[in-house]
Amino acid sequence: MKELGYYNGRIGELSEMTVPMNDRASWFGDGVYDAELVRNYVIFALDEHVDRFFRSASMLKIEIPMTKDELKALLNDLVKKMDTGDLFLYYQVTRGDGPRAHVFPEGKANLWVTLVPKKLNPEIQAVKLITAEDTRFFHCNIKTLNLIPSVMASQKAKEAGAYECVLYRPGERVTECAHSNVSILKDGVLFTAPTDNLILPGISRARLIRACKRLGIPVREEPFTLDALRNADEIIVTSSSNICVRGREVDDAPAGMKDEARFTAIHRALVDEYMAETTPA
Amino acid sequence: MKELGYYNGRIGELSEMTVPMNDRASWFGDGVYDAELVRNYVIFALDEHVDRFFRSASMLKIEIPMTKDELKALLNDLVKKMDTGDLFLYYQVTRGDGPRAHVFPEGKANLWVTLVPKKLNPEIQAVKLITAEDTRFFHCNIKTLNLIPSVMASQKAKEAGAYECVLYRPGERVTECAHSNVSILKDGVLFTAPTDNLILPGISRARLIRACKRLGIPVREEPFTLDALRNADEIIVTSSSNICVRGREVDDAPAGMKDEARFTAIHRALVDEYMAETTPA
Repeated sequence: MKELGYYNGRIGELSEMTVPMNDRASWFGDGVYDAELVRNYVIFALDEHVDRFFRSASMLKIEIPMTKDELKALLNDLVKKMDTGDLFLYYQVTRGDGPRAHVFPEGKANLWVTLVPKKLNPEIQAVKLITAEDTRFFHCNIKTLNLIPSVMASQKAKEAGAYECVLYRPGERVTECAHSNVSILKDGVLFTAPTDNLILPGISRARLIRACKRLGIPVREEPFTLDALRNADEIIVTSSSNICVRGREVDDAPAGMKDEARFTAIHRALVDEYMAETTPA
Repeated sequence: MKELGYYNGRIGELSEMTVPMNDRASWFGDGVYDAELVRNYVIFALDEHVDRFFRSASMLKIEIPMTKDELKALLNDLVKKMDTGDLFLYYQVTRGDGPRAHVFPEGKANLWVTLVPKKLNPEIQAVKLITAEDTRFFHCNIKTLNLIPSVMASQKAKEAGAYECVLYRPGERVTECAHSNVSILKDGVLFTAPTDNLILPGISRARLIRACKRLGIPVREEPFTLDALRNADEIIVTSSSNICVRGREVDDAPAGMKDEARFTAIHRALVDEYMAETTPA
């Protein structure tokens, strides 16, 4: 298949798939998701993503209608149906269905999966960033479907010709981007926001921290400001879809790009890890 | 029909209706809604709700695919298809569809409508309330589909045997409830939170203010605290689905119920207005 949609056991071309109007995604965005790259028909970092998916669901008291092992088997089966092995895998669980009422419905949760072609660019990409106030809720550690502020910030970035929008809370504390984490290098040290309720605990962010430690780069998980971002030696934007990207501009002013050796080593470490783990056995 | 679902011109029994998997409701909750009572096949406060619906959409740069007059005509037509004229009317617009990408898609927005039977209880209902911290985003003035915090608060209320959950921001400023506004009477004065980005500008709340003014009750649109709520003479919970309800308990402690004359006059004014406006010409 070219683009796959799966809903509670039904499978079809994504553009032709339908779901019940009464799924709680429709009325409340009442669900959580996870997503990762696939290369050579191998799902990258599957265990870490599935663990996070179950944690997200649990924090909202949504019971995923299968075990972790069953889900991994299903995802691996679906990947095999695709025309290419270089894909973006996305899955979500929604809190069942029923007539619109805020309180939890009777019945089981619904499982959704999509697969679309995607290939990682393994070269270093240096990108423009913009900034905007972080007006999101206080559950950003849960990967929910309540994403309107991220939609608006992403559109703002696109209209500015930027790759991502860096968000900051009042007091100018940088949290993360619309759909990525952001970290900085300053004087040879990696600074990255701590994993509280203001940021998503990114899988690529966790791998970035581990890579830095292996490379002898000290890591400080603590909040940093917009000012620190603008004056960073390097700005590192990580996500499961693009792994590791280099910031070169913040709000139209040059930024980062001052510690090429360390950035290159980090980028290489993350991309090599991805390549190694997605090479079929 | 018993329960109607409408999606971009398609109509069917709600439980059998389907929508494209790729509607942006599915991935982002990317839409806004409005909802109101119908009595005797007459939609209550239709102009006010449609005006707010268009304002909500505009704030998120969603273009509703018809004019206000066309929408009102459609809603009136759909109501006529129903087996009963006592209904709850709900409608939403989502930002089109397409493969999951945060940035705005090409193409038109999607219009959804549902109609289900509902009859207002015109008697005074005195209800239990609980409280919880307001962890929502800073766009609560827009009636969006990003409602997970309201879902969680509503479920918490249900499990406590309560009618609603009153939300408060840090500093104990009361904002509103999970799906209602909340106001208080103290020493003969109505206090209600101002219409900033922390509360929805409720249609019933606006009518409450107008009714108080007609009744000679002074109105102060200013923030009040949890403490003021607990010590209020009366607690008034307003919403488009139940119009006006009386709080009698907050977090298991008796509250309100100390100014029956004014509460009764207000309740009567709001219910009479509803009855008069939904009596067919």
